[in-house]
Parts: sequence; structure tokens; C-alpha cells
Amino acid sequence: MNRAFDEVKKYVDKAAAINAALSLFDWDNETLAPASAAPHTAKIIGGLSGQYMEIITEPAFIKMVEKCEREGGLSEAEQGILREVKEEIEKLRCIPPQEYRTFSELKAESSRIWAKAREEDNFEAFAPTLEKIVEYQKKFASYRAKEGQQIYDVMLDNYEKEFNMETLDAFFCELKESIVPLLKKAVRESEKIDSGFLSAGYPRHSQERVASFIAAYTGFDFARGVLSVSAHPFTTNLHNHDVRITTHYGKRIDSSIFSVIHEAGHALYELGIREDITLTPVGQGASMGMHESQSRFYENIVGRNEAFWEPIYNEVAEIFGKPLVDVPLPDFIKAINKVKPGLIRTEADELSYSLHVLVRYEMEKLLIEENVPVRDLPEIWDQKYEEYLGIRPENDREGILQDVHWSQGSFGYFPSYALGTAFSAQLYHRMKEIMDFDGLLRAGKLSAITDYLRENVHQYGKLRTSRELIKDMTGEDFNPRYYIEYLEEKFGK
Amino acid sequence: MNRAFDEVKKYVDKAAAINAALSLFDWDNETLAPASAAPHTAKIIGGLSGQYMEIITEPAFIKMVEKCEREGGLSEAEQGILREVKEEIEKLRCIPPQEYRTFSELKAESSRIWAKAREEDNFEAFAPTLEKIVEYQKKFASYRAKEGQQIYDVMLDNYEKEFNMETLDAFFCELKESIVPLLKKAVRESEKIDSGFLSAGYPRHSQERVASFIAAYTGFDFARGVLSVSAHPFTTNLHNHDVRITTHYGKRIDSSIFSVIHEAGHALYELGIREDITLTPVGQGASMGMHESQSRFYENIVGRNEAFWEPIYNEVAEIFGKPLVDVPLPDFIKAINKVKPGLIRTEADELSYSLHVLVRYEMEKLLIEENVPVRDLPEIWDQKYEEYLGIRPENDREGILQDVHWSQGSFGYFPSYALGTAFSAQLYHRMKEIMDFDGLLRAGKLSAITDYLRENVHQYGKLRTSRELIKDMTGEDFNPRYYIEYLEEKFGK
Repeated sequence: MNRAFDEVKKYVDKAAAINAALSLFDWDNETLAPASAAPHTAKIIGGLSGQYMEIITEPAFIKMVEKCEREGGLSEAEQGILREVKEEIEKLRCIPPQEYRTFSELKAESSRIWAKAREEDNFEAFAPTLEKIVEYQKKFASYRAKEGQQIYDVMLDNYEKEFNMETLDAFFCELKESIVPLLKKAVRESEKIDSGFLSAGYPRHSQERVASFIAAYTGFDFARGVLSVSAHPFTTNLHNHDVRITTHYGKRIDSSIFSVIHEAGHALYELGIREDITLTPVGQGASMGMHESQSRFYENIVGRNEAFWEPIYNEVAEIFGKPLVDVPLPDFIKAINKVKPGLIRTEADELSYSLHVLVRYEMEKLLIEENVPVRDLPEIWDQKYEEYLGIRPENDREGILQDVHWSQGSFGYFPSYALGTAFSAQLYHRMKEIMDFDGLLRAGKLSAITDYLRENVHQYGKLRTSRELIKDMTGEDFNPRYYIEYLEEKFGK
Repeated sequence: MNRAFDEVKKYVDKAAAINAALSLFDWDNETLAPASAAPHTAKIIGGLSGQYMEIITEPAFIKMVEKCEREGGLSEAEQGILREVKEEIEKLRCIPPQEYRTFSELKAESSRIWAKAREEDNFEAFAPTLEKIVEYQKKFASYRAKEGQQIYDVMLDNYEKEFNMETLDAFFCELKESIVPLLKKAVRESEKIDSGFLSAGYPRHSQERVASFIAAYTGFDFARGVLSVSAHPFTTNLHNHDVRITTHYGKRIDSSIFSVIHEAGHALYELGIREDITLTPVGQGASMGMHESQSRFYENIVGRNEAFWEPIYNEVAEIFGKPLVDVPLPDFIKAINKVKPGLIRTEADELSYSLHVLVRYEMEKLLIEENVPVRDLPEIWDQKYEEYLGIRPENDREGILQDVHWSQGSFGYFPSYALGTAFSAQLYHRMKEIMDFDGLLRAGKLSAITDYLRENVHQYGKLRTSRELIKDMTGEDFNPRYYIEYLEEKFGK
């Protein structure tokens, strides 16, 4: 019996309660809070963040954590909790509390400032906030940087361990070399595909009905979750019985449909976390890369697969009515897989997707490592889109302002999307070996696939790392070749 | 300069942040949270409540409060904050933390249990929870009771100071004596009034449109508020820039309309709180009685007044369409003022309303002071309804299960409804002396009335007591005669 752990757990529970409150405020801010609430609410969020930090950095707690470690005799879950707690202490104890609190207040207001700037296509209105956020995040990372460690590597480590600029440069280089030639060919072949019927002015309420239908069909459990609307789709979880997703509704129905499937993928991960570790520091996805592996898996490998749509296409088409109801399934599948480089990452085809991520990765390196000023970002963004994707944004709304991440200080997050996609391809390769993947989808048995992922990924939360999970499932270390082979197989033929 | 106050304020700000989080969870539980979330979320709420209590009862804080008091030199707002803080300390320091936390967890689940029991008309399913709540609340009140003080008086004191069983018995006795004969006459005269068109199957979306329209017209500011839906209408406020109200939609359109106006009345109070005291312990309504004075004022004195409807009736009737669109305004006014004792308090006419409150007041006295068992409540409720209102509920859904309050441990709250109504009549009497009340309404200038109340009531929050506010406005102590005269004037003619 480790008595110190019981004491540690008391602090951990307090921190978890504050964290859950912060998640709820976050959700509420993005989905419901009235427009003028932000300044006062930011103070509340600053206050809660400050209390979170006080708990984590309290000397009595840190001593107890050390004692707990010495005593030993912990279960696997307890060891995981202790490991996460130690990491959190290391992250926070080097930041001056006042700076942390001020940054939390800034963050509480910034996504609203970003959303407004985006709506008004006005980068100038967001730039001063973004400058402050960059400054704080660089400072915080510098506090934590080990001898000789680069700042952006510290940031990358927040989202995916064991991947730094060196490994990511190699990863993206390999991707680019394979994707660029594939892309040229696929774009040519896609030109003849008609996808106009995806944006034929379907009413909002039809989109809403389909969103609920698709979420439920993907396995999102409405008794343990909520589907709502926000400027940028996202997933929040309070615990494994309260996971919430959002989508947005616009002209393209595939945009809301695939946002729902993507976020449902995140949600299935959180809903599948084991009961004994929910509401603890290990009770969430292993890493952001692993999280994106699940969302991208459902969005693309499942959601853009003809077999997924077979049992449900007629029902969905009926809800939308004309013209979709007259479009045969194979034409719908072609349209949702049409390769055409666009400006918006979340609406990108599978092939050009990683190039969108590459743009952001390179920009973050410039911003963090090369100290490129914030005001230069729109122009660099536009240039990179022209270079990699062959199109240039006509405004900042479709350019530099399209993603919420930087407004939240999430620098180093974007590579997770590409990494996660690569993880998912490797898991998919394995799954095809042991189950009749398309047959299950065709039979409407997506739940069998989800069960497999719950068993092998979801339930563990942070008890295992991404690489351990991949290795346990596939018998092999992470290997980006599976991703490239998947793309070659799908788009090269 | 009082340096101790700055230290006190740090604790107060922490407590305010936790309190705001608890309010948000409360709002979320009633309006949005998924059905299965409650058990885990209750733990979060228990954790936050425990931290709130820790802050308030921390010895260093209590010492600092005492030091602050000795130092003196505080502004009016600071004095108010200190007064409220001392009271909160007195309330909480006598409760064992574990009991407080367990009760908070219980409360976090209980309104859902109540809502389900109500939906299923199954008192048995709620009774064990209610028993526990009663037990805790009696225990907590007994910890705080002064020598010789009765338990229910301690509870009443939570909601309205200077009113105890002795004063309330006299108040209700006076009301009953005046209302019962008035009621008989008014019921007879109301018999010929047709109100069937109020429940003619209007679609939900029309009710929603009217609810938003009426809320905005009453002065509810959607830039600083949200209107949503819950089983039992209520108001939550995070601060004076985020105040949220709910309504419910059923068969009777007057039910949702007057719920909206009632809750908007509460909201106007919270939205009118002064900027320098919002998010502090004095930054909310003076008392529950005063709060209900505002909600009941807007609901009845304003909302059931023909002059209020003159500028907007046609627009509202158009939204509902037939048959309302063919009903002349005077007939609508008669219908919304029809006196007919019913089973549901929130749908009661102005005359029988206080009898509904009286039933609950007497039942709480039995439950708390006479130790009547919870299982006997439904029968006693039904008997009292038969005795005072001449009708007997056919099920518990329309009887003992109709109100949310007891599920929240709010014993002693109900008298506030009758007291608040009496307060509002006294304020109204004064307002008619100094302004052309009906003329303002007819001209669509409800805002002038609200400005007056903001100036004289809302802005002060808890800086002044109900009685001080009434005296400052009317030059007289609280006097229930104005309420009786108002009823006689309106229904006795």
C-alpha cells in the first residue's frame, strides 16, 4: 500500500475538477456565451487557471509526489498518473504564476477576437493578440527548454513526444516527394468529376438532421455527448460520459459531414477511455497525433469509403432531397474523393491535406525559430499556398485566419494532423489483415471496427504512448511508408 | 489604505471564480448536459464545492478578514464585500467539509433525478433523494442555529433576512383573509372569459420566436445573455455581462410567455448590477424576495397590463397566426388575467398565486419543524390544494413534483415569491406617483421604467437590504397592504 499516493490523489482530483471547469468554459465560449461576456469571463478563467497552477506547484504536493515515487508499489494506472503529474509539475513550476494567469486570461478572449477578425476578414484586428500569444508561448517554452534544446522542439513535445524538427523535417520531406507527383496526376484525373451537387443550396435544417444522423451512425453516443455548432469544429471532453463535438454549416454539405465524422472520431477515443482512469491525468488520448489518427481514420479511411456509405447513402440523400437524391452512390463517392487543391485545410482532399499541414509547420518554424514578425505572416502564407498548392488566397479569411489553433497558443499542434494521418494508415494496414474491413462497413457493422480500436487504443488513454500503441497493434515501430502506400493505392491507380 | 482588504480580495476572487464555474455547471446540467453525464459530473461539482469551502474557511483567510475589519477605512462596496464574506464564513465554518462536499455531489445529481421522476410521474423515484436532502439541510441549519432559534427560521434567513415564521405567519394570514373572498368573486366573474385560444396548438417554432421577441422587448440584452430551454424555467448569472434565462414550451402559450417575462425580470436585475461590484459577493440581488419582486413585477404588473401589450400585440399575434390573430387585444388581456385556480404555481393567476406559495410554506414548516416524513408529502399536498384552491391534483407530476426547488435543497425559498410580489406592489404604488406608468408602456418606453429600477434597486446588488431599498424608494417600511390594495383594485371591481 502506497499511502502517499492517496494524498497525491487528493490534489490530482482537485486539479481535475478545475480542469473540467476550464473545459466547460472553453466549450461554452465557443458555442453559446453571449458576445459581450468575454472580458469578465476571462477573469474567471484566469482565476481558475491560477488555482490549477497553485495546486500543481504547491510545495507540499511536490514533496508528496516525490515521496510517492520513493514508496513504489503502484498499479499501472497509478504509475501513469504519477508520470503525468510529474510532467505537469515540470511544465508549470518554471512559469511565474502571474504570467501563467495573464496568459490564461488572454487565451480566454483570444479565440473570440480571432473569430471576429476572421468573420470580418481583418488580420490587423487579430495581429496584436497573436503577437502577445507568440511572445508568451516562446517565453514559456524557453523556461522549459533543456540545455541546447530549440524552442520549437519544446513546443512540438507538448503534442507528440519523440518527434522533433529533425524527425518531422524528414517525415514531411518524404511525404512531399511522394505526394507532389501523385497530386498532379490525381488532379488531372479529377477534373472531369462533378461535385457541384455537394453545394446545391441544401437547407440548414437538412444539414443538421444529417449531422445528427451521421454522428449517431459513426457511433457517437448522444446519451454521453452533445453535438453543437461553432466557427471551427472541435471536440471537448469533461469525462468519458460527457464528450462534446461541434460542426459548422455552410454551402458545402461535405464540409459539415466530414467535420462531424472527424470530431466523432475524436469523441469515440474519449468515450472509450477506461472507467478507472477517466477524470485523471491519464484519462485522455495518448497524444495529439494519436488523437488525430482516430479523427482522420474515421473521416477518411472510413468516411470516404464507398463501403461506409452503402448502407446509409439512400437515407442521407433523401434528407437532402434534390439534386442529391438523383445522384448515384458511385458519383457521390467520386465527388467526396475529388482531388483539387483548395484553400481550406479542413475541406482538403486526402492527397493535398498534408501539404496544408506542411505550410503551417514551416510557418511555425519561421515564427518561433526565425522570429519572423506576425505582420509578415499573411504574405508568407499566401506565397506558400501558391508554391505548394498552386493557388493563392484572395483574402485572409481563407488564408492566415482560417485556423483557430494559434489563437489558443497551440504552436506545434499542426504536425499532429499529418502524423496522425500516417498513424491511421499504419493501423488500417494492420486491421485489413485481421478483419474484413470493407465487409464490416458494408454490413453496417462499423461498431466492430470501433470495438477493435477501443480495445487496442482508446481504453488506455495516456497509459501507453503512441509508439507503444502502434507497436503493440502492428508489431512494428511507426513507419510512414504505410501512409504513402495508402495514398498511392488510392490515388495512383 | 486598508492593506488587509487587498489580501482578502485575493481569496474572494478565487472563491468567485469557483462560484462562477459552479453556476456554469448548474446551467449546463439543466439545459444541455447529456443524460448519462451526471454521476461523473457530480464528482467534479463536489470537488469544486469542496475547494470553495476550503477557500472560505481557510484560517489564514479568516484571520485576514478579522484584521481587515480592525483596520477599517473601507469604501461602501468594500464594507459590503466584507459583510457578505463574514456571513459566508459563519455559514460554512460550522459544516464538516466532507458533509458539505457530499451534499454538493448529491445536489448535482438530484435535479436530474427530480426531472426524471416528474417526467415519469413517479414520486417514489425521487423520495429517497429528497429524504437525504432534507436530512442534510436540517443538519446544516442546526449547526448554524443560534440559541433557541428554530431550524426553519435559519433556513428562511438564507433567502430573506428579518422575516421568520412569526412575521410570515402574520403576512400569510393577512393575505389569506383578503384573497379568499376576492378569489371567489373573481372566479365567478372569470367563468365567462374564453381563454381556449391560448392553447390552440401553436407550433413550437412560433413560441420560440415570440419568446425571443418578448425577452428582447422586455429589455433582455442578447449581447449579454442567452435564452434557452429547461424543465423548470430559471435564471443563472455568471456576471453582469452574462446572464442566462430559460423557458419551457408546452400547450399554453401564456405559460412560456410569462415564464420569459418573469425570468427576464430576474435577468434585468443581474444585468443592472454595478460594474464595480459584479463578480464580488455583493454583486447579486439583495435577497431572493427582492429578486422575486423584480421578476413578479415584470411578469404581472408590467406583463399582464394592457398598456404593455398595446405596441406589440399585433406583431405577436401575427407570429402565432390563427386563431390568435383574430382575437382582439382586450379579449387577450382578459384571457391572460383570467382568475381560475389551477394546479401549477408558475401558471397561476395573480390572485390565487399566493395560495400556491402558502401551501408550500406550510408544507415546509411541517417537513422541517414537525418532522413529517417525506413519503406523506404527496397526500398532504393534495389535501392542501383541495382546501385552499378547491382542486385536487390527479397525479404527482402536477402536484408534489412540480417545483425544482426542494431538489436543490432550497427550503425557505418559496415565501420569497409572495414577499417579492408584495414588495413589487409597494414599489409600483410609488412609481405611479412619480411617472405616467401606463403612458410609458403604451408608448413602448418600458426602458424608462427599467431605468428607474436600475437606478433605485438593481445597481446596488447586496449593498443595501430589501427593506432599505424599499424605504429609500417609498419613504416607508415594507407594508403588505399595498399588495392587497393592488389585488382589490384589479380584481375587486
